Amino acid sequence: MADHHPYVGARALRREDGRLLTGRGRYVGGVGPPDAAHAVIVRSPVAHGRLTGCDTEAARSAAGVLGVITPADAAGARLPCVAVAPGQRESSYPVLDEEIRYAGQPLAVVVARTPEAARDAADLIGLAVEELPAVVGVESAVRDGAPLLYPAWGTNLVTDFEVGDTDCEAAIAAADHVVEMTFRLGRAAPSPVEPRGIAADPSDGTLTIWAAAQAPHHVRDHAAEALGLPLNAVRVIGCDIGGGFGAKEHLYPDEALVCLAALRLGRPVRWSETRAEHLSATLAARDAVHRGRLAFTADGGFVALHCDILGDLGAHPSNVGISPLAVSAIMLPGPYRFERAGARVRAAVTTTTPTGSYRGFGQPEVTWTRERLVDEAARLLGADPVELRLRNMIGPDDLPAATRTRQSYDSGDYPAALRRVRELARVGPPRDGRRRGVGFSCHVEATGMGPSMGLKAAGQAAGGFETAIVRMEPDASLVVHAGVAGMGQGIETTLAQLAADGVGVPLDRVQVVLGDTAATPYSSIGSIASRSLVVGGGALNRAARLLRDRIVAIAAHQLEVSGDDLEIDDGAVRVKGDPASCRTLREIALSAWRGWDLPEGVPPGLEERVTHDPAGYTYAYGAHAAAVAVDVETGAVEVEGYWVVGDSGTLVNPAIVEGQLRGAIAQGIGMALTEEVVHSADGQPAADYFPPTTREVPNIEVVLTQTPSPITPGGMKGVGEAGTIGPPAAIGNAVAAAVPEIAAGVTATPLTSQAVWSLLRGDDPAEPG
Amino acid sequence: MADHHPYVGARALRREDGRLLTGRGRYVGGVGPPDAAHAVIVRSPVAHGRLTGCDTEAARSAAGVLGVITPADAAGARLPCVAVAPGQRESSYPVLDEEIRYAGQPLAVVVARTPEAARDAADLIGLAVEELPAVVGVESAVRDGAPLLYPAWGTNLVTDFEVGDTDCEAAIAAADHVVEMTFRLGRAAPSPVEPRGIAADPSDGTLTIWAAAQAPHHVRDHAAEALGLPLNAVRVIGCDIGGGFGAKEHLYPDEALVCLAALRLGRPVRWSETRAEHLSATLAARDAVHRGRLAFTADGGFVALHCDILGDLGAHPSNVGISPLAVSAIMLPGPYRFERAGARVRAAVTTTTPTGSYRGFGQPEVTWTRERLVDEAARLLGADPVELRLRNMIGPDDLPAATRTRQSYDSGDYPAALRRVRELARVGPPRDGRRRGVGFSCHVEATGMGPSMGLKAAGQAAGGFETAIVRMEPDASLVVHAGVAGMGQGIETTLAQLAADGVGVPLDRVQVVLGDTAATPYSSIGSIASRSLVVGGGALNRAARLLRDRIVAIAAHQLEVSGDDLEIDDGAVRVKGDPASCRTLREIALSAWRGWDLPEGVPPGLEERVTHDPAGYTYAYGAHAAAVAVDVETGAVEVEGYWVVGDSGTLVNPAIVEGQLRGAIAQGIGMALTEEVVHSADGQPAADYFPPTTREVPNIEVVLTQTPSPITPGGMKGVGEAGTIGPPAAIGNAVAAAVPEIAAGVTATPLTSQAVWSLLRGDDPAEPG
Repeated sequence: MADHHPYVGARALRREDGRLLTGRGRYVGGVGPPDAAHAVIVRSPVAHGRLTGCDTEAARSAAGVLGVITPADAAGARLPCVAVAPGQRESSYPVLDEEIRYAGQPLAVVVARTPEAARDAADLIGLAVEELPAVVGVESAVRDGAPLLYPAWGTNLVTDFEVGDTDCEAAIAAADHVVEMTFRLGRAAPSPVEPRGIAADPSDGTLTIWAAAQAPHHVRDHAAEALGLPLNAVRVIGCDIGGGFGAKEHLYPDEALVCLAALRLGRPVRWSETRAEHLSATLAARDAVHRGRLAFTADGGFVALHCDILGDLGAHPSNVGISPLAVSAIMLPGPYRFERAGARVRAAVTTTTPTGSYRGFGQPEVTWTRERLVDEAARLLGADPVELRLRNMIGPDDLPAATRTRQSYDSGDYPAALRRVRELARVGPPRDGRRRGVGFSCHVEATGMGPSMGLKAAGQAAGGFETAIVRMEPDASLVVHAGVAGMGQGIETTLAQLAADGVGVPLDRVQVVLGDTAATPYSSIGSIASRSLVVGGGALNRAARLLRDRIVAIAAHQLEVSGDDLEIDDGAVRVKGDPASCRTLREIALSAWRGWDLPEGVPPGLEERVTHDPAGYTYAYGAHAAAVAVDVETGAVEVEGYWVVGDSGTLVNPAIVEGQLRGAIAQGIGMALTEEVVHSADGQPAADYFPPTTREVPNIEVVLTQTPSPITPGGMKGVGEAGTIGPPAAIGNAVAAAVPEIAAGVTATPLTSQAVWSLLRGDDPAEPG
Repeated sequence: MADHHPYVGARALRREDGRLLTGRGRYVGGVGPPDAAHAVIVRSPVAHGRLTGCDTEAARSAAGVLGVITPADAAGARLPCVAVAPGQRESSYPVLDEEIRYAGQPLAVVVARTPEAARDAADLIGLAVEELPAVVGVESAVRDGAPLLYPAWGTNLVTDFEVGDTDCEAAIAAADHVVEMTFRLGRAAPSPVEPRGIAADPSDGTLTIWAAAQAPHHVRDHAAEALGLPLNAVRVIGCDIGGGFGAKEHLYPDEALVCLAALRLGRPVRWSETRAEHLSATLAARDAVHRGRLAFTADGGFVALHCDILGDLGAHPSNVGISPLAVSAIMLPGPYRFERAGARVRAAVTTTTPTGSYRGFGQPEVTWTRERLVDEAARLLGADPVELRLRNMIGPDDLPAATRTRQSYDSGDYPAALRRVRELARVGPPRDGRRRGVGFSCHVEATGMGPSMGLKAAGQAAGGFETAIVRMEPDASLVVHAGVAGMGQGIETTLAQLAADGVGVPLDRVQVVLGDTAATPYSSIGSIASRSLVVGGGALNRAARLLRDRIVAIAAHQLEVSGDDLEIDDGAVRVKGDPASCRTLREIALSAWRGWDLPEGVPPGLEERVTHDPAGYTYAYGAHAAAVAVDVETGAVEVEGYWVVGDSGTLVNPAIVEGQLRGAIAQGIGMALTEEVVHSADGQPAADYFPPTTREVPNIEVVLTQTPSPITPGGMKGVGEAGTIGPPAAIGNAVAAAVPEIAAGVTATPLTSQAVWSLLRGDDPAEPG
């Protein structure tokens, strides 16, 4: 049979955009029961303390108020950590707790007929709080004598374990040179355009939840667990999502409280996060301290890389537990060969908002550390940083290859990407007195999470498989149901492209249905970790192929020829060389759905369902280059040029991949230059937070290569997070190249003008600002 | 493995009733988009004519009006007949037509912001109609010189074909005796408690339809066809249904117009039928004339039965075409042996509301004919009518048996049912001067429609299979998705009983999801023809068994024992004889959904999907007895006692079966005594219609027997329609027994006091009223 693939690889227009760009998206704030009441979450004003009283009387009797939920109502309700590290203390956390461990922690819920009435009544709640000393900054949390968040533990440390080689010390000690530096990547707030929101309707024995959910089944599972409901009594309907970035992949305590309120009141309730709430109510991310050491020979051969990772978990291990820190550790080696590579991972609690999942998930952090170390090693050797990288890089012929941290890189040509980006990158023209430099960074990224048994081995309470259903309707139109979710990333379009090619129908004949636990197959992880198109698309590729085979088999039976003599072309299954001898797809589909004239043993219907549990992760990679101009009078850093060569395997839609990279690079530039959640010493988050604007983000030149993954049916790797991984390191290296005298101090992000100015002044880099 | 069946056969409480009895049902009038506009249908005031003008100007400019749809907007839109008889003229009908063929025919739609504004504006539509002579009564339609509804045909006859033996005439001519009579069963209006309704939302490339739909996929298919949409762009969400009875199993022209209005206006639109509209806008039923002849030997042996069926189709063949007439023909023999049996089927159009599907679907009509003929034969012979029946009845040892009309009766004991009902029945005590008698009727009923290839052979554009999906969630709760629909008949409860037993879990751990084309499997027929539990339940029985087998296989793998040594008991798979050695269902379900520790080759997940295409119909049967008192002064007939012995195969829930029988018998009593849509000579339907009340319906004694069907996995036959089949004949026979002097005139229903009084007076029974 001829294999036409007119759509895979095409720059098909995103089908999502028809509604998203014309204001017809269906966000959670605009769907669900029209008669829903409105919730407002009452939050802790202090970072650490104990709620000793909660006077709800005035609020309950206020106009329009339907009910108030207090900690007593939620006693025992807990949400799970889906990943548990070795020796981790606590694998769940309460929905509502009288012990206060961050400013913004939910303490009560007020439900009223209108949002205004709920907000007014929330101000009437009388909270009595016995305040305790705040713990801000993960290093202070692990100092002797630090106040303890959980006194019963006797420590603020949640876990302490090693990854990779445990005998790095000797290798480091024996090496010719060692660069040792301590790095920080600032605390990030994911900041999607649409804040979080939820609506819950407890009617008729089923709790229906509308949510902006990257993982509707995940939300379902957590809601059932927190609320004590059987799973078959919870339905989650995903909505359009104005950006997720990892922040919308589980059920938050405040969201569980909205569901609880709906159940208690016996009526639908909705809630939307305010932008102000987002900074304290939504999981933060990054915020780790890395003591990194790179050991190498006199001629620049990498001997060992070790990283002592200390992560700030905030008030408790969040849904992902300490996983971003573990990912930093396992992805430590990047695209390079080391004789030894290992990490110590420690995680501690502080009296701040819990940290969790955000694009890159530990990989921007470790890339920042590794790639800055490499540049400083080059500086020490007087070598070219690109050549030093190329000297130590895993070559295309080395693949597949296992790292010292047990990653099995699948395919690629890492040196080619770096060489290509070097050709593209150019420092800005000398003018205006600013200092200019170019910096590079390289990374290998684990995508396509992940094999179910691998996740079990890693302590993850999740199966990594995905299921796709592809159905040809009686009129030969096609419907795809998949467990992965859409959040504006274009997955509706790319799945449609795969299905159209796989079965052999025009793209506009394919409909994609996602994100409803009553209608779409189970996905225990959802659309996170750059996995949707890899695992979900892999399942779909197999399902589409099976459906095509079944269509051909039916045609072969009806035409009384061998299936080998048939091909699908122009809406029909045709005899090769005699295209007028055919059965139209419509005829075949109709007979299949009627149960008429089918081959012996073939049941009626025309639908295939495939579960794909990948054999391993896929490994995308990229090489980034940034050109910066640094104003040494003010410390202001401008990114004047940005180049990326990215490889995410088979390109289903290059336009979408480019868009994903550009958007994520903007986020990475934000991490590098502007974004940080800052806390005062008493644990109050600052009210301002600066995502990058067009002022900070230059034109980004994207070059795509494609090395198919042998793991994925179809060869795809993931790309969603890729762009966030390289920018901090590339920009940091560019700043260090532009102003070498502060290179040793380029260890912390964001590189705000104030921070760079402090470095230029010679302030202690460990105490920026 | 032990087979516990604690639920099948139990009188489990109906899970539907929690919401239905407390006002929390979700009917179409209360669901769907809250911002929907409201439609009012403008209908023809005359029965026959031509629309020559439709002035919409005043309506369009009225306050609140959003749009008006006229015939020009719906040009070419047609709805299909899903069954086409031999030689049938026309296999589809227009959605909106300028040729008027019944009073109440839709001619325009007004859409406004409120129902009131739409109604007011509808009055402003200026219809110009050129009236033509009405054709009322099917016999007048086929008389020479009758006005023609479709002049191009040259006749009002739509079809004319024969069923069964074509050589009956000779057998009849040679027989010792022949009873020949002409029967009528009055035109019925299905009259569910909830009239029809629909809401349609054209957002985002998908037309979502909320409908009180016995067959959501059927509605979807018809909407796509009428509106020219691909099937994957139409979603139908079924709602709770306040009674369907066959009247809600397809898309009506007025409903298609509401969808069309939503598409044209680009906004959601809803419509609800008024009770007054129901009599002319919803398909009517019955309304056939049967010239029946029963030929028998001097000693009472049945020789031949022939019926000349002339059916009134109304204005055009409806969605079911002439099928009720064909069913009358094929079910002519009932439970008796005949040397010859056959029917001629003719169908004609009249200028009345089209007729279609209603409980019993031709079977009450033919039972009325056959059973009245048998009683009159007994009267002619001076024989006991029950004994005459028993003498000619197919015995249990004769089964399976084929009839002369090609039905393959599967199983049963017809004589036992009749003997039993004879034991139960007793004539009322002589008092008050009324004449009293008992009448009997017997029937065999085709249920469980039907084998797909059989439907193809019968000219039905439908596949008879059903699909069920049963899924054990990660917490071991169970979800069933089925293509059949719930309409208050209890199918949610009975499917849950089957699933609970089949898998081996408590009943309250099972959730049943029905009626959403995005979430439930394809059913091309839906819940009609007493087939839901037979075909859908048969599929579910097989799926549940497969799921159970899979659970046991996983447990066997994990426990390292043979599956043969395991049984499911008390929430766990246990080693027989060592019940403490076990894996809980929860453990197994969790590992299946995580993809952990599964047998080689078993994919993750715990779900089975089975499509069941039955090998044949199942044949339920019953024997009915009615005791009546007839007031010869007024003609008033009172049913003083009613007894039924019914067998619908395996009883999944006897309480539900009894309820179904009682409700349907009440409908049958209505047919016998009170219900008829009467038309004036110019084709105007009378505004009154009398379903039976508690005054007409006595206590009904129900005895259930169960002879499993060998066709169905689980042995079920259908029961929904059964109760409607026997009452007219049993009551008619009772009236004839009570007042033998009018027996020859007991040929038409309803037997209103006026009709009986006319018979007593000696009026011509062919011209009642």
